[in-house]
This record gives sequence, C-alpha cells and structure tokens, in this order.
Amino acid sequence: MKILVKDADIFNGKEFIGNGLIAIEDGTIIHCGSGSLPDLWKPDEIIDGNRLLALPGLINCHTHAGMTFTRGYADDRPLMIWLNDYIWPLEARLTADDIYWGTMLGISEMLASGTTTFADMYFMMHRAAEAVKESGIRAVLSTGMIGLGSGVNEKLAQSVDFAVNWRGEADGRISTMLAPHAPYTCPPPFMKKVLDKAEKHQLPLHIHLAETRNEIEEIEKNYGKTPIEWANDLGVFNHPTLAAHCVHLSSEDMHILKEKGVGVAYNPQSNMKLASGTAPVAELSRLGVKVGFGTDGPGSNNSLDMFFEMKAGALLQKLAVNRAEVLPANEVLAMATSTGADILGLKDVGMLKKGMKADLILVDMDKPHFTPTFDPIAHMVYSGKGSDVSFTIVNGKILYEKGVFRTIDVEEVKQEVHIRAKRLIKG
Amino acid sequence: MKILVKDADIFNGKEFIGNGLIAIEDGTIIHCGSGSLPDLWKPDEIIDGNRLLALPGLINCHTHAGMTFTRGYADDRPLMIWLNDYIWPLEARLTADDIYWGTMLGISEMLASGTTTFADMYFMMHRAAEAVKESGIRAVLSTGMIGLGSGVNEKLAQSVDFAVNWRGEADGRISTMLAPHAPYTCPPPFMKKVLDKAEKHQLPLHIHLAETRNEIEEIEKNYGKTPIEWANDLGVFNHPTLAAHCVHLSSEDMHILKEKGVGVAYNPQSNMKLASGTAPVAELSRLGVKVGFGTDGPGSNNSLDMFFEMKAGALLQKLAVNRAEVLPANEVLAMATSTGADILGLKDVGMLKKGMKADLILVDMDKPHFTPTFDPIAHMVYSGKGSDVSFTIVNGKILYEKGVFRTIDVEEVKQEVHIRAKRLIKG
Repeated sequence: MKILVKDADIFNGKEFIGNGLIAIEDGTIIHCGSGSLPDLWKPDEIIDGNRLLALPGLINCHTHAGMTFTRGYADDRPLMIWLNDYIWPLEARLTADDIYWGTMLGISEMLASGTTTFADMYFMMHRAAEAVKESGIRAVLSTGMIGLGSGVNEKLAQSVDFAVNWRGEADGRISTMLAPHAPYTCPPPFMKKVLDKAEKHQLPLHIHLAETRNEIEEIEKNYGKTPIEWANDLGVFNHPTLAAHCVHLSSEDMHILKEKGVGVAYNPQSNMKLASGTAPVAELSRLGVKVGFGTDGPGSNNSLDMFFEMKAGALLQKLAVNRAEVLPANEVLAMATSTGADILGLKDVGMLKKGMKADLILVDMDKPHFTPTFDPIAHMVYSGKGSDVSFTIVNGKILYEKGVFRTIDVEEVKQEVHIRAKRLIKG
Repeated sequence: MKILVKDADIFNGKEFIGNGLIAIEDGTIIHCGSGSLPDLWKPDEIIDGNRLLALPGLINCHTHAGMTFTRGYADDRPLMIWLNDYIWPLEARLTADDIYWGTMLGISEMLASGTTTFADMYFMMHRAAEAVKESGIRAVLSTGMIGLGSGVNEKLAQSVDFAVNWRGEADGRISTMLAPHAPYTCPPPFMKKVLDKAEKHQLPLHIHLAETRNEIEEIEKNYGKTPIEWANDLGVFNHPTLAAHCVHLSSEDMHILKEKGVGVAYNPQSNMKLASGTAPVAELSRLGVKVGFGTDGPGSNNSLDMFFEMKAGALLQKLAVNRAEVLPANEVLAMATSTGADILGLKDVGMLKKGMKADLILVDMDKPHFTPTFDPIAHMVYSGKGSDVSFTIVNGKILYEKGVFRTIDVEEVKQEVHIRAKRLIKG
C-alpha cells in the first residue's frame, strides 16, 4: 500500500518544516518534505494536503482506556468518595468483554481526535490488546498491579505473561511494560519481585509517582523519603521508566528524574480535576527531563482529546510560574509527539522523516478558528480541537477519515458500551 | 416562522429537566418541556431531537471579537512585549472594514461552537454592529475608551452616540454599554464624565478590573486603594456593571461586588495564558456574586469556543482551592447560560422556558466522547467541544446547522481575513 500526501504543511515532531510531500510505502515514510519522488513511484491513494497540516500522530503517554465506562459517572466529588463509593465498585464489576468494548470506545475517541499511540495501564489487558490489534492503533500496554492482599504472585505472573506474550504483536504495534501501580499500593518486597521480572524479561516500567499530597505524606511517614527517592532507592529507575503524574517533586527529585532519564507523563487536566496539584513541568523542561502528555483515564478528565490536554497543560504552566513565555507552542507540540514517543521507548514513531513508521495526522486548517494563520503550530496548541483532525494514519494505514472509521464499527461500539454501562451501574 | 424540536433532552439554564418538546414561534419559546402542543399548531420546520441535548445558547460575557486578527500572531511572549511590540501596532492599523470582517469571523466561530450572545468591547463598533445585524447573533456592544491623551471628550461622545443609536437595533438583538477600559487607563475626571453619560442615557458599564498584579500595584500606588474600591468610590457600581477579570480581589473587594450586584466575567484561559492569575471564583460563587464566563479576545486565548472555557474554568477552581467538588458541572453550565444572560442585563434569554426569546443550541450526544451518558450536563462541561454543536438558533432563527452557516458566507469571511491579515503584519 502506497499513500502520497501532496502539498501539506509539515510539523516534523520537532519543528515546522514548511510545505512538502509525504510518501508512505508498506507502513513506512519513504519521503517527507520538499523535493520530488521517483517517476516510477505510483501511489494507491493520494491525499490533497492543501490547507492541511501534517504532524506526527499525538502520543497519549498515560491513560486507562477501559475507564471510558466511568466517564461522567460521579464527577465533582472528593477523591476518596469518588474512588471508594463509585469507581472501584464499578470497576470490580467489569468483565473481560467490558474491557474490550470500553477500550475500543476509547480507541475510537483517540483516533477521531488525532492520537495514534497510547500508553495504557489497566487490567484484563489481553482484551485491550485485541481491541488494539483489530483497530489498527499503536499502544504500549501494561497490567496495573497492586502488591497487597492475596494472590499477588499469581497476578504478577499473569502480568508478566501478558507483557511477554503480547510485545511485538499486531505487526509490531503493541509493546508492553510492567506496571506496579504506585508506592502506596506496592510494598518494597513486591517491588523487588517486579524488578526481578523486569530485568529477566527486559521490560520497561510504568508507575504512578508523586500524584497527590496524601501520597507524599504517606511515603514520608512509612519510609522517610519522597516517592521519587523511594523508587530510586529500590532501583526502579535502573530500568526504563514511565512515571505518571510527578506532581509533587523536591528539587532533589527533579535531579534524580533527570539523571536517571525517567520519562514523565504530565496529566494536567486530571491533576486539576482531582485537585491533585500542578506538576513543575516548566522546571522539569528547563532541567532537560523528558515530559510527554497524558490524559489519564476518562473518569478523571473526562476526555481523551489530546488537544485539550496540550492547551490546558501549556496554560497551567504559564500561570504556575507567572511567565507567559514558558512552554511555548512548539515545545508543547514536540512534547505531544516526538518526546512522547521517546519516553515510551518507541524509536520509529513520533517524527515525520524518512525511515520512520507512518503514524501521522492531517489537521484541517480551513476553519474559522484557525483564521488567520500566522502560526500553524500555535494554532494546534491554543486553537485546535480533536475534531479538526481530518485523517489519522497509523503504520501506513488510514484508520479515520473525516468522521468515518475504516476499522471500527463505531455504532456497534457505542451501543455495546451504553448497554454495558446500564448493567454496571445497577451493580 | 415556527420551529419544533421533538424528543430532545433539555437543560433549561438552571437544571436538567429531562426529555420534551421545544416549540418556537416568531422568535419566542411558546412551549418547553413535557406536555403537548395544540393540534392546530403546525411547525414550518421540525428538528428530530433524538440524541440531542437542548440548552440555552452559551453567553460569552467578555471578548474583543475583532481581535481575531491577532490570533496566533505573537504567542508565548511576556505581556508588555506582546502588547507593545505586536498587538497595539497591529491594532493601530485596523480599518473600519477590518473590524467588520474580523468581527464576522469571530461571530462565525462563536455560532459554530454554540455561543448565541457575546459581550464585546472594541472600537469602530458600528462596523461590529453591522456584522451582528447581518449574522443574526445577539450581542452587547461597547466601545473601549482610554481616558488619556488628546481627543478624549470626542471619543466619549462618539462612544455614547454609538451606544444610544444602536441599542435595541437588529430586532432587539443589540444592546449596548459604555466601556471605560480600566482603572489604569481612565483617570477619575474622565470616569466622572463617563458616569454622567451612563446616568443620563441609562447605560450599563463594561470595564476591566483587577486583571493583573501590575494593575493592583499601580492603583494602590496612585490612589491607595484596590481597583474594586477605586471603582466603588467613584460610583461606578451605582450603575449596572459588567466587570471583566476580577482576578486579584481582597475579601473586602468580594463583599463590595456582592453588595453592589456587580456581574463578573471570568476569563480563565486568558488569565492563564497571560499569566495574570486565578480569579477566586469558587469563593465569589459561595458569596453569591454573579459570575459568567468570557473568552477574552482571540489574541490571548486563542479560541472563542466556550466549551474550552467552561472546562478550563471549572478545573482551575478545583485546583486553586484544592477541592474536587467545587464548581460542579451543573453550576458551570448555569454560569455559561442563565447567569451570563443575567449579568449582561438580558432578561429574555439564558433560559429555555415559555416566553423567553428562542436562543438555544442542540448538541449531538451521539459521539464516542459522550459515551456512556450517565450525566449529560457533566459531558457538556468535561467532555464537550464546540464542534459537538449541531444547531445554533438565535431569536428563533436557525443560524448554523451541522457545519453550514445560513446567514454568513464563511468562505468569503475567511478569505477576507487572510488577505487583510497579510496587509496588517506588513505594517
């Protein structure tokens, strides 16, 4: 399959490179930018890129896609009431089929709003993996593990089995991690077992760290250290690590994250909605820590639209440090694309250039809210919305085009989720 | 003209009232809710409301619509550099025709994202008024006045002429205010003249108050009081007043706003983007001060989409007071509709009920990001985007339907703005 995008303006994942051609063959970008193609190269499909902006597909670095079932279920409640009385009881009733349909719904929303890769931490992940495989999206999947209570070793074994069996599947679109949930749910003896498995199977780690003030207090009380120090002292960061949230950080914590090359998933809207706090992303960025964006689960956001996330995340940093010039649009868009891919350990996506996998989106710039067009990059961050995405392409396949899904029966998906949601709230 | 909306779920501006009928005749709602219509009442147009949510059109309480020309022009710069080196020089080159086209572009964006009324403060407002008249939207227009330099009296006279001549025009869709820009640009002798005119012509006031820390310091230095005290002591609040921003408030300031019935326009995204601060809206709301939402101008946002504004505004308050339960979705949606109308002095819009003007929108709930649908009101605030709006109706006329404008040649508008923007940056 050969696709040619003609005359599009291009943001390559790091910077705006002007107008050019993008040629895709067998899932790979074989040309991107100015210049021309060999006369003999004949595309199967041509996309007229006039008034479209091409950019790498957005990378959602932290979510729980199956939580679509909790979207709008119990908003505006204090965190512990929200979790104890609503979210956890509902989640306890989720079946493997629910996970499949809930994840497929999340994938539908993500493809329609320009996300081509998501990092997911949830449970019964083999069903999430099936949804990824069928839909054509790219994902980094992990089973969230609680190291408390009974059956812990069995859960770890299942989690490792999933990670080992599914990595590289779906034409390489699936990669996997091990996901100990958080410092307050994973005691050190359990963490040591997890790290042994990570070492043995060469699996990266995905963990929630330093999300709430409560967590900081609890870890300080139990271990006399910060969550980042706790993780570092256990040796977590000797493995490639994706650390979600990192809201409450000491100066020393930030240096540890930098020194150890930890990737941080910044989830501004979830952190605001749950009143968790403001991650010091402007400072992390200044120090050179790699930060990508995550939406967190649809229960605490309640959207998987990365355009919202970029805008809220940029604006929040300007407010937090009282400087309008921090986190400029180009940096934000790079975080949501090339840096996001980097912190997920994906070497062949996140940039539009020759040899990379063809994961890209085409955004319709011919809208009132993109007029005038002094700066298309600023428009992506400050004026854009997921609905501006005209084409979503993953691994060289067009999965979504102007409201139409090519691999998903979205009517069936919505219907299934509506029916299942009614069952889930009845208990 | 008679329009019937059948089988829609309805938020009436205060609360969700379930499924029902909305009947519109000659611009007025003659029935809203359950029940039935007289057999003899035959609509000219029927809208199937299945999977649509009907709500009052969103009320944008503070913007400068003509600033669409500055959208994305010079983002991520410190405030004074942004203003001095970019915005003000560009604005100085705006012609009356530019104001018309720039405002028409803003109106296009607003109608397409569900806004039916906007409160505007800009200049050469007769041309903005023409755009309002032709497009069919509702607006509260005012000429921003600087009380410094030469020609001040002449500008005041022109501003009063505009306000007196245009109020009630366009089938009553236009109302007007007097708009002294801000405490730091309007010395007390000028303010007294403005207030005399407001009294004489019974005109409400629209003013920027307490937006930045700089303003607080400057007014404290020059007058020994806060901007709110300054305005109150001058007698501003003896007139109906729309106060934009109110970011930096003392406890006494908040009580003055409450006691005097001042309406506050909360512009969370502009205040974040310009690093101005966080308005204490949770506290204002607790005290019973009337607060609506504003987008501010497209130069400092850069969007006129009120859905973004609601979400960012709600999330920011939860973060600021560290309580996930403040500013719940129902309150936010009421602020953006009924309270917004209230603080603009519009008695016959902002609510869907018999006898009100038919200003309403119909939102397509049949989307992945609105699935499941436990709570359609939470969905409006936390999951919605302007592009979810299927119908925008003002004064009983359908102005926008599923991407199509009925009163605006949007291709011409975009083209005019592109051409004019190129001229404007050349200087």
